[in-house]
Amino acid sequence: MSERNLATLETPALLLDEARMQNNIDHMRGRMQALGVSFRPHVKTNKSIDVSRRLMDTSEGPITVSTLREADYFASHGVKDILYAVCIAPNKLAHVSRLLQDGVQLSLILDSMEAAQMLADAAPNMDRSLDVLIEIDSDGHRSGLVPDAPELTEIACFLDASGINVKGVLTHAGGSYDCRSVEAIRAMAEQERLAAVTAANRLRAAGLACPVVSVGSTPTALFAEHLEGVTEVRAGVFVFFDLVMAGLNVCRTDDIAISVLGTVIGHQAAKGWTIIDAGWMAMSRDRGTSGQVTDQGYGLVCDREGRPLEGFILVGANQEHGIIAHRSADPSISPQLAVGDQVRILPNHACSTAAQYAEYNVLNKSNQVVAVWPRFNGW
Amino acid sequence: MSERNLATLETPALLLDEARMQNNIDHMRGRMQALGVSFRPHVKTNKSIDVSRRLMDTSEGPITVSTLREADYFASHGVKDILYAVCIAPNKLAHVSRLLQDGVQLSLILDSMEAAQMLADAAPNMDRSLDVLIEIDSDGHRSGLVPDAPELTEIACFLDASGINVKGVLTHAGGSYDCRSVEAIRAMAEQERLAAVTAANRLRAAGLACPVVSVGSTPTALFAEHLEGVTEVRAGVFVFFDLVMAGLNVCRTDDIAISVLGTVIGHQAAKGWTIIDAGWMAMSRDRGTSGQVTDQGYGLVCDREGRPLEGFILVGANQEHGIIAHRSADPSISPQLAVGDQVRILPNHACSTAAQYAEYNVLNKSNQVVAVWPRFNGW
Repeated sequence: MSERNLATLETPALLLDEARMQNNIDHMRGRMQALGVSFRPHVKTNKSIDVSRRLMDTSEGPITVSTLREADYFASHGVKDILYAVCIAPNKLAHVSRLLQDGVQLSLILDSMEAAQMLADAAPNMDRSLDVLIEIDSDGHRSGLVPDAPELTEIACFLDASGINVKGVLTHAGGSYDCRSVEAIRAMAEQERLAAVTAANRLRAAGLACPVVSVGSTPTALFAEHLEGVTEVRAGVFVFFDLVMAGLNVCRTDDIAISVLGTVIGHQAAKGWTIIDAGWMAMSRDRGTSGQVTDQGYGLVCDREGRPLEGFILVGANQEHGIIAHRSADPSISPQLAVGDQVRILPNHACSTAAQYAEYNVLNKSNQVVAVWPRFNGW
Repeated sequence: MSERNLATLETPALLLDEARMQNNIDHMRGRMQALGVSFRPHVKTNKSIDVSRRLMDTSEGPITVSTLREADYFASHGVKDILYAVCIAPNKLAHVSRLLQDGVQLSLILDSMEAAQMLADAAPNMDRSLDVLIEIDSDGHRSGLVPDAPELTEIACFLDASGINVKGVLTHAGGSYDCRSVEAIRAMAEQERLAAVTAANRLRAAGLACPVVSVGSTPTALFAEHLEGVTEVRAGVFVFFDLVMAGLNVCRTDDIAISVLGTVIGHQAAKGWTIIDAGWMAMSRDRGTSGQVTDQGYGLVCDREGRPLEGFILVGANQEHGIIAHRSADPSISPQLAVGDQVRILPNHACSTAAQYAEYNVLNKSNQVVAVWPRFNGW
């Protein structure tokens, strides 16, 4: 590729620190080995084959996706073993059918008899038999059946009787994002494990093999003490980390691998504001740290080389304007940045910030742009 | 195009009610005529030539853009008169130069001597002379010089002496988004007008012609009592409107022309939750109504035909999951939606929600998809 360096990069631009990313991946892989589970990385955070190749066990997967567009894209890059981890809706069945025709081993999830009936009706028209996991609610934050719900075995037996392969159960302790301590995350990991294993054992007692017991979230994957009875773990945001994860003590600020490069375009000196060309379109509207102990505004300000400018955050954002000020709101404390100077902003939430971009500018340890990796968005 | 109807559309999908949009445009055009000003629509909300053709006076513009990517795209569709309304940064000058070479009449803005010096240094290498407006701060919300800032005339005279064409002054009363009444918006419109006219008169007193006096925001454009001394108005979000604007009484809920089509994928009956496949990725993370009198969560829920389901909002959102519940949080009040049923969600903020999509599904009055209009994102 032609040379790009930070100073000439048109801003805002998304940066990816390759060494930090690799370190995050190595750490998670080490955890999976130590826990004795297989790893099915969630690619919704990165939406990039270049990133995901480093996450996957093999070039064919396995992976977890949050949209069928992700399934299409990764299938087009040779990935075969794909779990679509959002309960299936009828208007997606034609798309599912196309993926199965293309040879993808696509697994679906559901948590209701209505959806099971819909799949049973559709199954005879599918080229391949359908693989399904039943979603379990381990923390009350979203979808899923509680582990002792009577419907759990009813749905599983109905699917089985309809010729649909009940692969197992799946849960996601998204509530771990709201934990306030590592101890709370550890407890949440055990709650997540226990819910999934309890549900799996009920299916086995009902005569189903239930080979897959799938759990996962970045915090619980990193802090689980053991995962007895679990077969696979899903996690995604760990690959880049972000300020929400740092606020949970799941990572350190200097583990965060993505950032937004912005440029100073002006000042409001009386207010202590430095204005940059990275606003909420560049950062996303995510304010995930607003409920944490330390509110990071729209992001934590670093210099061009990625060193934090102590105490400075993006206190406000318009569509294409970001406002840097000191956390104390003291207008006399200035980051001493001139028009044209570049800064890096660490994001609250890697998934939402990365989704504002079509590419990653990949940096080596000398802060040179050594590659540009495309990513995609939408459905 | 091949036929698309709502029932078979894969969700989430962005819908655009063409009649509502046209009505919003006609209303704004009528206002501009009544006020006796020219109109330079801001295309950052729509980022679509199909939408913008209905906004522009001629096929060549004028328009306002928030990124140079927008300038590229609209120039490629024949638009010539483009104002880039974010203070210019040095790493964008090569891009500016390309646009000028391509024959675009691009106007830039700035609010500092540093930026003026940078332009003066770059000007000799540009194919065409640079047109510049000076940004005025009319409400303390972002960039710009206050109208009586000594630097205002210094910068203007320096630019003029450097062979740069000082077209005039520009201000944006973005603070109008935080007004609590129509009276407050009207007062803000007068404040915006007065700031711009005062600044323009200072430049004229310093011997500069200052032919352009540019103001604008959707609320102030719609409620200004008069715009004496103003030559042009910029506004963008009015084309679609959104819940933030409805909360300001700038529009009615049934003027909102865009919505997100989602599908029910499950329930948590004990909590009164209906779960859909439109989460924050589909709606954006914008929570712009959270500070208004009525907090609309992540959006207001309507049935598939667009009729509000009274009292139901998206109370929560994960990346690809939205949670519908009653505003009262009473779990016994249910919208009575089954798995597979579709809903439309009206967004908090048109700019941020539309930015999550690559296309508009354009609906006629019978809710048939009569066109698909592409849009773009990024920089």
